[in-house]
Amino acid sequence: MEIVVGGRRKAKRAYGFDEVALVPGPLVIDARDVDISWMLGGRKFDIPIIAAALDGAVNPALAVTMSELGGLAVLNLDGIQARYEDAEAVLQKIADAPSEGIIHYIQDLYAAAPVQPELIKRRIRQIKDAGGVAAVSAAPHTAQKAAEAAVEAGVDFFFVQSTVGTVRFESSTISQFPVADFCKNAPVPVIVGNTVGYQATYELMEAGAAGILVGVGPGHICTSRKVLGIGVPQISATADCAAARDDFFEKNGKYIPIITDGGIRNGGDISKAIAAGADAVMLGSTIAAAAEAPAPGYSWGMATSSADLPRGTRIKVGVSGSLKDILLGPAHKDDGTMNLVGALRLAMGSLGAHNLREMQTVEMIIAPAIASEGKSLQRAQGVG
Amino acid sequence: MEIVVGGRRKAKRAYGFDEVALVPGPLVIDARDVDISWMLGGRKFDIPIIAAALDGAVNPALAVTMSELGGLAVLNLDGIQARYEDAEAVLQKIADAPSEGIIHYIQDLYAAAPVQPELIKRRIRQIKDAGGVAAVSAAPHTAQKAAEAAVEAGVDFFFVQSTVGTVRFESSTISQFPVADFCKNAPVPVIVGNTVGYQATYELMEAGAAGILVGVGPGHICTSRKVLGIGVPQISATADCAAARDDFFEKNGKYIPIITDGGIRNGGDISKAIAAGADAVMLGSTIAAAAEAPAPGYSWGMATSSADLPRGTRIKVGVSGSLKDILLGPAHKDDGTMNLVGALRLAMGSLGAHNLREMQTVEMIIAPAIASEGKSLQRAQGVG
Amino acid sequence: MEIVVGGRRKAKRAYGFDEVALVPGPLVIDARDVDISWMLGGRKFDIPIIAAALDGAVNPALAVTMSELGGLAVLNLDGIQARYEDAEAVLQKIADAPSEGIIHYIQDLYAAAPVQPELIKRRIRQIKDAGGVAAVSAAPHTAQKAAEAAVEAGVDFFFVQSTVGTVRFESSTISQFPVADFCKNAPVPVIVGNTVGYQATYELMEAGAAGILVGVGPGHICTSRKVLGIGVPQISATADCAAARDDFFEKNGKYIPIITDGGIRNGGDISKAIAAGADAVMLGSTIAAAAEAPAPGYSWGMATSSADLPRGTRIKVGVSGSLKDILLGPAHKDDGTMNLVGALRLAMGSLGAHNLREMQTVEMIIAPAIASEGKSLQRAQGVG
Amino acid sequence: MEIVVGGRRKAKRAYGFDEVALVPGPLVIDARDVDISWMLGGRKFDIPIIAAALDGAVNPALAVTMSELGGLAVLNLDGIQARYEDAEAVLQKIADAPSEGIIHYIQDLYAAAPVQPELIKRRIRQIKDAGGVAAVSAAPHTAQKAAEAAVEAGVDFFFVQSTVGTVRFESSTISQFPVADFCKNAPVPVIVGNTVGYQATYELMEAGAAGILVGVGPGHICTSRKVLGIGVPQISATADCAAARDDFFEKNGKYIPIITDGGIRNGGDISKAIAAGADAVMLGSTIAAAAEAPAPGYSWGMATSSADLPRGTRIKVGVSGSLKDILLGPAHKDDGTMNLVGALRLAMGSLGAHNLREMQTVEMIIAPAIASEGKSLQRAQGVG
Repeated sequence: MEIVVGGRRKAKRAYGFDEVALVPGPLVIDARDVDISWMLGGRKFDIPIIAAALDGAVNPALAVTMSELGGLAVLNLDGIQARYEDAEAVLQKIADAPSEGIIHYIQDLYAAAPVQPELIKRRIRQIKDAGGVAAVSAAPHTAQKAAEAAVEAGVDFFFVQSTVGTVRFESSTISQFPVADFCKNAPVPVIVGNTVGYQATYELMEAGAAGILVGVGPGHICTSRKVLGIGVPQISATADCAAARDDFFEKNGKYIPIITDGGIRNGGDISKAIAAGADAVMLGSTIAAAAEAPAPGYSWGMATSSADLPRGTRIKVGVSGSLKDILLGPAHKDDGTMNLVGALRLAMGSLGAHNLREMQTVEMIIAPAIASEGKSLQRAQGVG
Repeated sequence: MEIVVGGRRKAKRAYGFDEVALVPGPLVIDARDVDISWMLGGRKFDIPIIAAALDGAVNPALAVTMSELGGLAVLNLDGIQARYEDAEAVLQKIADAPSEGIIHYIQDLYAAAPVQPELIKRRIRQIKDAGGVAAVSAAPHTAQKAAEAAVEAGVDFFFVQSTVGTVRFESSTISQFPVADFCKNAPVPVIVGNTVGYQATYELMEAGAAGILVGVGPGHICTSRKVLGIGVPQISATADCAAARDDFFEKNGKYIPIITDGGIRNGGDISKAIAAGADAVMLGSTIAAAAEAPAPGYSWGMATSSADLPRGTRIKVGVSGSLKDILLGPAHKDDGTMNLVGALRLAMGSLGAHNLREMQTVEMIIAPAIASEGKSLQRAQGVG
Repeated sequence: MEIVVGGRRKAKRAYGFDEVALVPGPLVIDARDVDISWMLGGRKFDIPIIAAALDGAVNPALAVTMSELGGLAVLNLDGIQARYEDAEAVLQKIADAPSEGIIHYIQDLYAAAPVQPELIKRRIRQIKDAGGVAAVSAAPHTAQKAAEAAVEAGVDFFFVQSTVGTVRFESSTISQFPVADFCKNAPVPVIVGNTVGYQATYELMEAGAAGILVGVGPGHICTSRKVLGIGVPQISATADCAAARDDFFEKNGKYIPIITDGGIRNGGDISKAIAAGADAVMLGSTIAAAAEAPAPGYSWGMATSSADLPRGTRIKVGVSGSLKDILLGPAHKDDGTMNLVGALRLAMGSLGAHNLREMQTVEMIIAPAIASEGKSLQRAQGVG
Repeated sequence: MEIVVGGRRKAKRAYGFDEVALVPGPLVIDARDVDISWMLGGRKFDIPIIAAALDGAVNPALAVTMSELGGLAVLNLDGIQARYEDAEAVLQKIADAPSEGIIHYIQDLYAAAPVQPELIKRRIRQIKDAGGVAAVSAAPHTAQKAAEAAVEAGVDFFFVQSTVGTVRFESSTISQFPVADFCKNAPVPVIVGNTVGYQATYELMEAGAAGILVGVGPGHICTSRKVLGIGVPQISATADCAAARDDFFEKNGKYIPIITDGGIRNGGDISKAIAAGADAVMLGSTIAAAAEAPAPGYSWGMATSSADLPRGTRIKVGVSGSLKDILLGPAHKDDGTMNLVGALRLAMGSLGAHNLREMQTVEMIIAPAIASEGKSLQRAQGVG
């Protein structure tokens, strides 16, 4: 399937959410009978949706609500919550700041206050005390120190996330983050990311990761692709990593779930990610649009605060409704951003998939979105 | 023709209306000599166009006019006409309501009044008394009860329609709609849909359907694809189902027509649907834009009234002209939404197709619409 | 190269102007040394550009100027010039009419006055008296009568044009236009169109056509495709017809030029049309934008005046400059609509093509225009 | 890999920046350890970025700064700097002129003053006196005369640039530019361009070029393609020329670097150009947007001043920041136009490439940008 792009250079074709669709077959299942539960690190979750470790998406209160609704939320240990005592006030400030100069404003706020282990502990205890599942995230270079505090406070899951997470890292000046040791020594399941590609995924599984985050520059038009030229559309990235998961399972008997992270905008994308092979999905903007989100109506990524090469800026996500309505409905909008669980159930039922494993094998077609059709088709669809 | 999208995941490429075009050959036929008639359930229709069972498209009066013009219109038995005595007033209310909150407004109106068998009977008699052909539609879970009333009132055709219609349905709580029994026992032809795919179509034909509606999430950018991730572009969907029809005919000697339903915006799409294998097409918005339509200038789908997962909203379709002008011309616009029959005749003549069966075999090419060409090409075409 | 679009339906991929580009090789030729002359019906023309038979593009005066510049212009014998004594005044009226209702306005003006043989003769004599080459065009059903008058007045070339021109035509009510007899009996070369496809082209050449117009619904997004679903992008259409020309020449020793007609917007498209196999091109809007054009700044097609199925409307083309500047330069704009001959010469020189026959074999690549790149690339190109 | 576009006409598919992306693997390298140096004509440069010979991008002062930062800037010897004593004032005039009629204004300014050898010498000495590396560019027909003055003034590199540069040129009126003699006789390295294609590149290397500029009409939507129909997207063009470079090196032992010139808009494009096989890149608009650029905020190409066929106009590029910030950061924007070196280092590190040669072999995928995804994906990316 390799294509010559010129001279001796070859490339495979990769596919994103907007280029595929799912095809119903001769069996339909009642949406209420569909099983959408999944396992991460030995714990069962009712819904395969994780709130991403973004300062604009997850604070301790939202993590608790997310747990109550059957999902999981990850708190960012490199962000505002771990740097400022009154994190909520700082987050509100970011939401209120004018667009002009916002990148610089965010850069300054992150640089001005160091991460405090005491704040890490306090945030985790806030979640645990309220009965939530506590999942946290740190970058490789901050993970060791953050993990000490987090484990002490009783954390349940630890995520180690960087733009490209691998087992192998070379540097002449800084020491490598020891993925395998970290996973072995951590008293809690460690989820690692982000990655794309069969080999990198397989190596992370061998290193002991309890879950893998899939997604590097996932969008067709995105900051990583603009700034770095790097990125793999999520359908192909997910399918590649799913092949590694299945081979690792066959060889080692351990089923390490893969979580598609990035680029998911609506219920249709969730269905497609799972159909491509994902066990769960991680959502950022969609969760940041919850009424309970920390910086109402706004979100930004960790790379926005990069001092020398910011990637991404603060974006307006608006407020869709309560987190419950976003996840379990009812939907008040028809754009696929609400009642995500209801949509997933209905999609799986319509596709004849009893559970997520079956959903990973439903028929998929390549059917690209065509810009020029937008308006008239939306019209046609609205009534047909 | 399967393409690897990543790992072991494969997918076929599917095509929609905007990706194909038809190619004239060395024979041209006088448009007046072209035969566009077709048979449904033993009855011959002069034109292969059916008005969709949308509350904004079909009321009893329009059904009568449609019959007079040689086509067929389907009345929605789950909608306003079967719930409200003064349906026309309620429909006008929906047309007049502000856009803000319109989904909720429609949800409430449908929830507030139950379907009344007496109203079903009255609507059908209105059509029959005026000499029209009475075709009605219900969802699987309401079909049995609606059919009793409809048959009593003398209905001619019964459509059973759901987002994905199949013979096989699994549920732990509700009983399956018995497609085969229903078709066998109904004293009138039963048309079932919507479906895509060879196998699902073949099974519905085996179950006794007198016609099949083809189309699930047909548009490249549409609500079903956004919310559920499900959908097959209509050219491919139609061609797949046409293969099932032809095989069923060869094996069983029964020719069960397939009707492409959804995503059709203009005369060109009608030509392409038939060239892909359809025996007829079902139109929604285009009919809702008739001066005689129930909610002048507006339309909305049944899924808009879904209480927990609305898919689609009320859309403004405008008013093109009389139903007669839309179907038989003359056209006052050059956008392909008027004189649909004239356009189909001219297309078939230009392609050398004497009848619909020949139209199903004309040369088709893949020639995608490219957004960037829009403006300048429309300009070039206007004069060239 | 056939692709399955679904079921048993197959289609070839066809390509348009915006999907291809030409590739320079190791030889460059001085643009002044390039030979762009061509032969039509035994007469040599200095430049391979023909002005299309549109009422907004060609009147007798423009035809004379076009001849002087080395090209050819075709006068429409079914249009205003043959219907109204003071044609220029009527054309100005159309240019001045408001957009609202313009299609109806044009329909009425064409319907109100019949074609007069005397006016046909007068227009041709105006061209001949001023030393121009007189080429005229009529539809098949008006061609016989128009030809009598035209020949009497000393016409040089006769074009017979319809949406789809073929040798074979079936009708139960009207008699077929006898292509072969007409070509044989006409004392002047007869050019026939429009056509696409190898077989149809070959048959027209066998019937005696002195030239073939290639182009049916050529644009990706165009009225013919919207209304009828019919159309073939011009690169593929031209290459198909060129194969017929070459085979016909090999077998019969007669070289019948093919003329790409429709969808050409700029100098780049002219280069590509010839590289695809054309011997010349026909331009509509680009000529209608000349200061000398009959309806300054506006154009419309013959199908706009169709009484029951108008295809295309009046469009604003603006005024680019004098016909001389459009054809021979200098260009005052950088959009490829001026100095078309200079651009063709420079393109051919850069591609190492000494003449049009060599230009038909330069390297072509498939390199689709991508909408999203538009703005930034135009920027990059402007300076790079 | 050849595709039939119609008849007997075949074409290869070519790819541009927006159609590919790079794929991280299982190794990540510290960005600080990555080696991005390269050699041109025996001299080592710290960064593989060259400022293009555009009047709006390079004046002597900017050339000096560029040298200090580790790159190279090329001064245009056919432009304002070589025609006007007070070049800066004339450049400011062009920046200040209204858009209306700007092409004509530029045409006049270039035509009004001839190139003066004395000015050529003065500009080069300005660069050398300030410690910069002096690189200059001239068109083939002006190169001989310009080279005499330039060499006398102590120039370091001489670029000969035309739209399509080849060894072979035919003309009945002007003598060919003797590429091989010029390269042999010049006391400094001669870089020649622009070219695309294996054969043309190989011939230029045989003629003695010390470097090759790759890029003819590189953008999908660009002036060269609009006006001439000519152009090859840069990924394919670069890969084709890289194959010639590698073969030439294998056969002759000389490694002649190829420089991708044109169409590069951001750091991502730089990464992709090198991954496609380039040894360095040439930037126009991006450099013209430096605070130090000669015509603050504006740029235009040499072809803009063409008297009879202007290609490209003056464009507003805005001011991004200082040249140092554009090249070495920090970035104040997230659009990939600043800290280009930091972005290249991070990309190479993320892709596990220790140096540019390894970067030429990282995994590439075809993953087209899709217009319709733009808005929502930018949103998703900003936070995900």
